[in-house]
Amino acid sequence: MDKYDSVMELAKRRGFLWNSFEIYGGSAGFYDYGPLGAMLKRRIENIWRDIFVVNEGYYEIEVPTIGIEDVFVASGHVGGFSDPLSECQKCHEAFRADHLVQDEVDNPDTLSSAEITEIINNNLIKCPDCGGDLGEVYEFNLMFNTNIGPGSKRTGYLRPETAQGMFVDFPRLLRFYREKLPFGVTQIGKAYRNEISPRQGVIRLREFTQAEAEIFVDPKNKDHPKFESISKKKLTLYSDPAQSAGSDQVEMSLENAVQQGIIAHQFLAYSMSLTQEFLLRVGVSSDKLRFRQHMKDEMAHYAIDCWDAEILSDRFGWVEIVGIADRTDYDLKAHSKVSKTDLSVYVEYDEPKVTDKLLIKPDMGKIGPVYKGKAKAVVEALQSLDANAQQDGEIRITVDGEQLTIPPDMFQLQNVTETVRGENIVPHVIEPSFGIDRITYAVLEHAYREENVEGEDESRIVLGLKSEVAPVQVAILPLLTRQELIGPAREIESSLKKKGIMVGYDDSGTIGRRYRRNDEIGTPYSITIDYDTLEDGTVTIRDMETMKQVRSPVKKIADTVFDLIYGDLQFQDAGTPVT
Amino acid sequence: MDKYDSVMELAKRRGFLWNSFEIYGGSAGFYDYGPLGAMLKRRIENIWRDIFVVNEGYYEIEVPTIGIEDVFVASGHVGGFSDPLSECQKCHEAFRADHLVQDEVDNPDTLSSAEITEIINNNLIKCPDCGGDLGEVYEFNLMFNTNIGPGSKRTGYLRPETAQGMFVDFPRLLRFYREKLPFGVTQIGKAYRNEISPRQGVIRLREFTQAEAEIFVDPKNKDHPKFESISKKKLTLYSDPAQSAGSDQVEMSLENAVQQGIIAHQFLAYSMSLTQEFLLRVGVSSDKLRFRQHMKDEMAHYAIDCWDAEILSDRFGWVEIVGIADRTDYDLKAHSKVSKTDLSVYVEYDEPKVTDKLLIKPDMGKIGPVYKGKAKAVVEALQSLDANAQQDGEIRITVDGEQLTIPPDMFQLQNVTETVRGENIVPHVIEPSFGIDRITYAVLEHAYREENVEGEDESRIVLGLKSEVAPVQVAILPLLTRQELIGPAREIESSLKKKGIMVGYDDSGTIGRRYRRNDEIGTPYSITIDYDTLEDGTVTIRDMETMKQVRSPVKKIADTVFDLIYGDLQFQDAGTPVT
Repeated sequence: MDKYDSVMELAKRRGFLWNSFEIYGGSAGFYDYGPLGAMLKRRIENIWRDIFVVNEGYYEIEVPTIGIEDVFVASGHVGGFSDPLSECQKCHEAFRADHLVQDEVDNPDTLSSAEITEIINNNLIKCPDCGGDLGEVYEFNLMFNTNIGPGSKRTGYLRPETAQGMFVDFPRLLRFYREKLPFGVTQIGKAYRNEISPRQGVIRLREFTQAEAEIFVDPKNKDHPKFESISKKKLTLYSDPAQSAGSDQVEMSLENAVQQGIIAHQFLAYSMSLTQEFLLRVGVSSDKLRFRQHMKDEMAHYAIDCWDAEILSDRFGWVEIVGIADRTDYDLKAHSKVSKTDLSVYVEYDEPKVTDKLLIKPDMGKIGPVYKGKAKAVVEALQSLDANAQQDGEIRITVDGEQLTIPPDMFQLQNVTETVRGENIVPHVIEPSFGIDRITYAVLEHAYREENVEGEDESRIVLGLKSEVAPVQVAILPLLTRQELIGPAREIESSLKKKGIMVGYDDSGTIGRRYRRNDEIGTPYSITIDYDTLEDGTVTIRDMETMKQVRSPVKKIADTVFDLIYGDLQFQDAGTPVT
Repeated sequence: MDKYDSVMELAKRRGFLWNSFEIYGGSAGFYDYGPLGAMLKRRIENIWRDIFVVNEGYYEIEVPTIGIEDVFVASGHVGGFSDPLSECQKCHEAFRADHLVQDEVDNPDTLSSAEITEIINNNLIKCPDCGGDLGEVYEFNLMFNTNIGPGSKRTGYLRPETAQGMFVDFPRLLRFYREKLPFGVTQIGKAYRNEISPRQGVIRLREFTQAEAEIFVDPKNKDHPKFESISKKKLTLYSDPAQSAGSDQVEMSLENAVQQGIIAHQFLAYSMSLTQEFLLRVGVSSDKLRFRQHMKDEMAHYAIDCWDAEILSDRFGWVEIVGIADRTDYDLKAHSKVSKTDLSVYVEYDEPKVTDKLLIKPDMGKIGPVYKGKAKAVVEALQSLDANAQQDGEIRITVDGEQLTIPPDMFQLQNVTETVRGENIVPHVIEPSFGIDRITYAVLEHAYREENVEGEDESRIVLGLKSEVAPVQVAILPLLTRQELIGPAREIESSLKKKGIMVGYDDSGTIGRRYRRNDEIGTPYSITIDYDTLEDGTVTIRDMETMKQVRSPVKKIADTVFDLIYGDLQFQDAGTPVT
């Protein structure tokens, strides 16, 4: 049993993750979050919101998961969001064709369908399931499609990413942010990819949750106003050159990375810093986290720079959990073109641009008598030109189809200063995109440990979750199921619930067993109510990580637990040590 | 402009609700939540969680929105989740056929397709859009369908309700709750109905959010352990008999309603009480809320009792926003049958049931010699019977296909006392089901008001949201955009953000305009930083509802605002009144 198996066994048994539709035999690529898993996932999402929405001010929006066809024509998903597929001609199982040839070639994902078909034929590759012949490779679109309303007049797609909804809403968002760059907008929600044949458990799902931020910036200014506050922070970077050279990832300050041109600019570096802050806060291990830069041939053609946050997992190696990219103006321009809508912003220059111009000033007193009824048209024609229009001192214009030559005495030249205060630009987009399901799994795997406890036979399984993400935040354990202990236990439970704290009440089995049960699901604190409670009004609080215990007054117990979870209170200060 | 228009105008302008895919011309039945709307909706959902998940202990799970076909065959949605449709033969627009005939008959939703077709023909009803002839009525299934994986081998549906995912997970949930009834489970998530032709704005969406609880109870015991704590609470009830008699809704305590048999039982009444608590807490007006009982012909055939919470809206009249039903064992039995899985629970009786039985005790000494090789089979056959099997003192049995008659001397009768401690039962389901989008709209409409302010020409638009659901919780308003005021303003902003409070920073326009802008979006408190702030370290806090102001120390401002929103702090105690 490798660590993936251990984690998944626990996850199933205790209600974190279940195969979907289990009583109907299940369906690959779908997982349920059970009671504890859903709570863990939601707490992870809420920390993301705290960082990106509350603190960065990137408001969240919520857009339908079903999108109309135009949206995905513009985004390129209708045309190009596909994987190569080959079907067994005998058992009719479908396979990712690029996976079938990965032992034969180096970068199978860069090949065309025809090229993969050729490799399959030349190497006599057969169906991995039944040995049958494999059919010709074709591109299979990964969007789930459906029909909106009766009939098949209107095709709809389940969105393959949350991002497009934010691009489509750009004009509304721009107004919301009072037409000022930079501004950011976020979305947490479901996205869908109809994978051909998903085989990696929770790592590759057909329905998954994304948390994405789209930050619209001035293409000419990708400095971040708060860069200084994080510039000394160190990240583990695995750059494109390092990968090409076969060297290792290195720890480096963001300041150095930007200065040396390893990270393209401050805004990207700042987003990477937020990403690291988030991942460490939810419980990803810092020594199992790195940022890997996309290599040139792997990056989307329109992107300037792209980094994946990757976590190290026992079974799958380094796994991408976040992508952080500068997508330039690609998306907005694509939607602007297909929707025929202006998606630009008027940006004022820091300094107005001043230019001198030599304009032509017609002399009405001389033009009038000569051109009579045409005089007005002649004057307008002259005013629309500048000094460059002169040829040998004269100016040739066309009025009502008639060519006229205006002699130098009919106009003067005038020096004028023109001031331009800004221009319309299409913003660039910085996009940090988080795979919440993979992050949730990473948190479980990095938190999981088995340890020996002195004087005990059975090893202790601990899900060492951070208290901020633990599904059950405190266990209430009356020592015995006697009315005199149940009464105060239920009162404590109720006072904690009123504070919004998720309580697990458990009165069955020995205290030792109950501690173990709670260690397994990562409950950071357990409160035991015993006969001393009735005497002196204190309870025992036990810390999951250290198994240390303190006695703490019942009267303030709700505040104490709240401050342990959300505040600065340290466990040793929560009461009198029990020795 | 009626109130719906006023609310929607504000909602669009300020970023609560937008038509989806607006730059592509939109699509009926889809709405976006803008930055403020999404925040409002999320806060409403979180209050629901606080009540149902944290306080009632009904853990939330998260199941895919795509379901496999079996699930919806079992639930009845594949067969029966449809609306009657008629298409215009000329312009090909599709219509809800029952809506077309609603002026001709009383209960069009109880009619068959053939009956509606007849009414259309007899009354010469034509296409409301173009006057063309209407086609034959047929049942249109309201589930969005798609294909899972390549090809069309595996049909998937977007779930029409979140409920089914909780029924399908019943075996896992039962284990999670350690096989004890009652227990509850909840889900907040997207659900989908492919409406034929949605025309009521945000009231009828094709993609919407449900919050549902499924509470599994012992069919023999529908008393609620905490009923007493809410029994005196009064609800406005509009019972089936009252509707039939044409009388009015009445205010009544839950105790009386249950005693008089108006509400079927305590568990349902308790769920209605939670529903009212939730709706009032998020800001539904108590005088625009009632509970209407389903009439006999409107209720699902398997349900015991069903109540809708309805809100009064200006344009649509009474609108259903919550349904609370006792669905009996219908769902679990349906899934049990199709999946061939046992979905029962072993329930211990309060008192074991003791019965006396007269058993047959074979006499081996006499049977052995007579039946020899068959003796063992004869003994076993006799032991499986009881005294009732005697006929005239003899017992007839069949052994290996041979009929045998056992005479009375080959067995004795033995009196045995049997104790049965419990039995396997299929739980009943109590289901409160909330339409979050309609509730969010109700909150907006009930909060919206326009009022005249003494000494001002322009009337004040106030979105009088409860501070717990307001999207922006506090506005930070430096009196002038001068560095000496911006500094402290940004510091206050930062201290509030650290507490998780959503801050709106606004420095453009007069203070009066900025107050108005915040009144419109329901920001409960505004903090003004002025030159006194620099002198005495206080700021002005303004209360949106009353427009009253207090001066309050900067030092504790984050705690003060936090306690105003989430705690018990009253505005008048938040500082020194400004007069």
